[in-house]
Amino acid sequence: MPPPNPAPPLVGTLPLGAPLPGENLQRWLHRALRQAMLDGRLPGDSLLPGSRTLALQHGLARGTVQAAYDQLLSEGYLVARRGSGTRVSQTLPDRALQVGSTRRRATPPRADVQTVAPPSPAGPWIRRLDHLEPAFPLRPAAYTLQPFQPHRCDVDAFPMDVWRKLHIRHLRDSRRHALWDSDPAGLPALREAIAAHLAIARGVVVAPEQVVVIGSVQQALDLCLRLLVAPGEAVWMEDPGYPGARQVMLAAGARVVDVPVDSQGLRVADGVRAAPSARLAYVTPSRHAPLGVALSPARRVALLRWAAAHQACIFEDDYDSEYRFVARPIPALKSLPLAEAHVVLAGTFSKLMFPALRVAFVALPPHMVEPFVRGASLTARNANGLSQAVLADFMADGHFDRHVRRMRKLYAGRAQAFEDAAATHWQGLIEVPAAQAGLDVVGRLLTLDETTAVRRLAQAGLMARPLGLYTATHRLADALVMGFGAFDEGRIHAAAKAVAVALRKPG
Amino acid sequence: MPPPNPAPPLVGTLPLGAPLPGENLQRWLHRALRQAMLDGRLPGDSLLPGSRTLALQHGLARGTVQAAYDQLLSEGYLVARRGSGTRVSQTLPDRALQVGSTRRRATPPRADVQTVAPPSPAGPWIRRLDHLEPAFPLRPAAYTLQPFQPHRCDVDAFPMDVWRKLHIRHLRDSRRHALWDSDPAGLPALREAIAAHLAIARGVVVAPEQVVVIGSVQQALDLCLRLLVAPGEAVWMEDPGYPGARQVMLAAGARVVDVPVDSQGLRVADGVRAAPSARLAYVTPSRHAPLGVALSPARRVALLRWAAAHQACIFEDDYDSEYRFVARPIPALKSLPLAEAHVVLAGTFSKLMFPALRVAFVALPPHMVEPFVRGASLTARNANGLSQAVLADFMADGHFDRHVRRMRKLYAGRAQAFEDAAATHWQGLIEVPAAQAGLDVVGRLLTLDETTAVRRLAQAGLMARPLGLYTATHRLADALVMGFGAFDEGRIHAAAKAVAVALRKPG
Repeated sequence: MPPPNPAPPLVGTLPLGAPLPGENLQRWLHRALRQAMLDGRLPGDSLLPGSRTLALQHGLARGTVQAAYDQLLSEGYLVARRGSGTRVSQTLPDRALQVGSTRRRATPPRADVQTVAPPSPAGPWIRRLDHLEPAFPLRPAAYTLQPFQPHRCDVDAFPMDVWRKLHIRHLRDSRRHALWDSDPAGLPALREAIAAHLAIARGVVVAPEQVVVIGSVQQALDLCLRLLVAPGEAVWMEDPGYPGARQVMLAAGARVVDVPVDSQGLRVADGVRAAPSARLAYVTPSRHAPLGVALSPARRVALLRWAAAHQACIFEDDYDSEYRFVARPIPALKSLPLAEAHVVLAGTFSKLMFPALRVAFVALPPHMVEPFVRGASLTARNANGLSQAVLADFMADGHFDRHVRRMRKLYAGRAQAFEDAAATHWQGLIEVPAAQAGLDVVGRLLTLDETTAVRRLAQAGLMARPLGLYTATHRLADALVMGFGAFDEGRIHAAAKAVAVALRKPG
Repeated sequence: MPPPNPAPPLVGTLPLGAPLPGENLQRWLHRALRQAMLDGRLPGDSLLPGSRTLALQHGLARGTVQAAYDQLLSEGYLVARRGSGTRVSQTLPDRALQVGSTRRRATPPRADVQTVAPPSPAGPWIRRLDHLEPAFPLRPAAYTLQPFQPHRCDVDAFPMDVWRKLHIRHLRDSRRHALWDSDPAGLPALREAIAAHLAIARGVVVAPEQVVVIGSVQQALDLCLRLLVAPGEAVWMEDPGYPGARQVMLAAGARVVDVPVDSQGLRVADGVRAAPSARLAYVTPSRHAPLGVALSPARRVALLRWAAAHQACIFEDDYDSEYRFVARPIPALKSLPLAEAHVVLAGTFSKLMFPALRVAFVALPPHMVEPFVRGASLTARNANGLSQAVLADFMADGHFDRHVRRMRKLYAGRAQAFEDAAATHWQGLIEVPAAQAGLDVVGRLLTLDETTAVRRLAQAGLMARPLGLYTATHRLADALVMGFGAFDEGRIHAAAKAVAVALRKPG
């Protein structure tokens, strides 16, 4: 509490200034005395008044003064000797530190005690990424999306009222036990709900014990790399493919083998030729990111047979497979025989619900569960408990299925609108395949290179990502990755027209 | 929706079974046909009825049948040739996979195509931990704590009603933008609130831009190791010290140098002698974990001078420094000059509020902010958005300070009760220092070795951790780490008596 009278009190004749707003008397006294010592107003070896004297002088409780003195003693600002009272230390902790400090030198030699060179974040982990554009923006994304920003879902259709009610249900005294750490592998109710969902929606039969809740698919991939791949060992990456996956592989020190993708998905035979003994293969079999193709049945078989023959792990990123508009979602690779021991299926609720949720999961081969949970505990601890409890109810009460069904219909309408708009406005300019799934498509540029196209779109307040960002080998035709999921049909038509104007304008 | 009449429908004369509860007709038809093919009831090359015929036979919509057929086609179960109708595939995807599967061999050779050996989580990361007890339990902790389980806070005193109201405030349509990804470095309002808190409570002046929100202190340490330390490079670890820190260092491949701790904290000179060019030092300067001592002013100076001279990073784990009962909390090491470029301060709300929250933070040297955010994005993405928004309000509205003050008083009372109970019941048995801070103390065993003591306590439904778990060098006296924070004063007295009975019983 601030004192009733804020006039500057004194130590002897020393002005100490007033307490700051919200600062209590003990903290104020500590700060004021320390400052006076640093300023030289209380020089080294000065004798301080006894705590009783100072308290009386300033109308403070003696305990307040004693506590401030104790604090300064424990920090080394004061020294107390039996019979000689409390004195200012001859060498203040701050002074001792400043002696060696000469900040003027620009590039101090490493072993020079006189310098203050900051420790450099230059471990091999970060150096491997130095030359690459970060896979995720380091600054916050704007809420107002520009069409046709890809990889974005629509958060306006999320049932906020249901979400609020479920939170209220859990934020009660009777649920106080949920404030404790939950199971390090995830809340049991949520693991069960996810296992049930996987069985019905993805054709994957796993025990709830094989499901582990984590924060993101990135985290799952990072952990699998750490568990399975030693630095220098090979991993297969889809080419083109998701930059976040490729960068976390590079950071882990893996030898990234870029395996081409064609209309049937990953060219497994090319991977086997290039790196038969790779430890892990990253694939998006249900809907390739970003090309949108599905991994063909023959390639699925070939991939699983390779993994079985070489004790390799297949990391199946099942990021938005629920959103298939023409038939039901293609069953996960994880649903096939042989997959049990070899496929890690990773999925996220960030795309299906909303990004800020940050709850994802893996369905693991049984023998990987314990190492994975141990790794997750050691490097992250567990996911937020309340979100897990609320999400478990959201699934168990049927809200999740309803939401996904509603969104599938919504996105299907937008995919159709996008196809129609492209047919109307982009003839001879961009060739767009029918979007049968997901939230985005890759449109091939017929007249412009992708750098020029992206620049012109940006000038018009529009957005697309060049396909080149998804490959490290640059073997691909010029194309744009464009999203339709986050924009309503009116906006899609208007923006498609604006895209045509922007791309057709002379040079 | 299940059909009104669940009698088994037929394909020709083939019984297909009934839909499962919650299974729609398309999914049922897909599943039933696939099963019939796998069972051999629909052999390879069988001609299927046209979709119109099958629909009429079973009273289904034609679109339903067509969708199920499309799905089976895309999965490779059916083949369609122009003019020859739709037939069952000669090689079902599942069959092709099962050919190579012979699960009988126990230890299959690696390159044998005939085997299904699972990929082994045997990367160097996990192998380095093989011989160690996991630092964090792999199974969920029980809600009912046994006295005197250490390192536990009290969740019963948390203001659940306030927490609920703040959630309701944010779960509104007008806050829908919060469903998007927040800033990858953390919600700006929360970073500001943490910076303000650090200035007042910890004496640390940092810009909000230097504060990064993450999930846990473990995660912060793991990232700093990855950013700063190459495999084989040395890091200093407190001995005894926090096992979670030591294990994440080992996992990262660092050479862990165990530096002794005495009554003044880390023996910095020993560290300098053993590994002067270590890249990072892990310390708990405000209250050593688990011994409870504070790092002395002289050692603080020595530590910072060493770091400055060797471009090393000091990782300051400030895990429960708010809870000091006799004077105000000791300012953080990070508050001293020289610390700006060399000290990473990490703190968590899990101890100050409740464990399931899983929100923590770091205050970083300016040059480390961008690499750290990049690393966090790549390996975890960002923290849960709603928890960040609610916590920011909890801090800005003054609830956090009130809660910490209330808990400090509560824990101080329990510390006193524990001291009193020990004096009453444990004379000649356990020597317990006065607990001036934190949630636990280390009691020295005067008659028993710690393994025997822990076993006898467990038999009586009591709990303590042997001090030996906190060291890898085993140079320490037999002692128990015991927590008082989560138990009320009545329970402390009763349990202290029970401890004495358990430890005094004949061997």
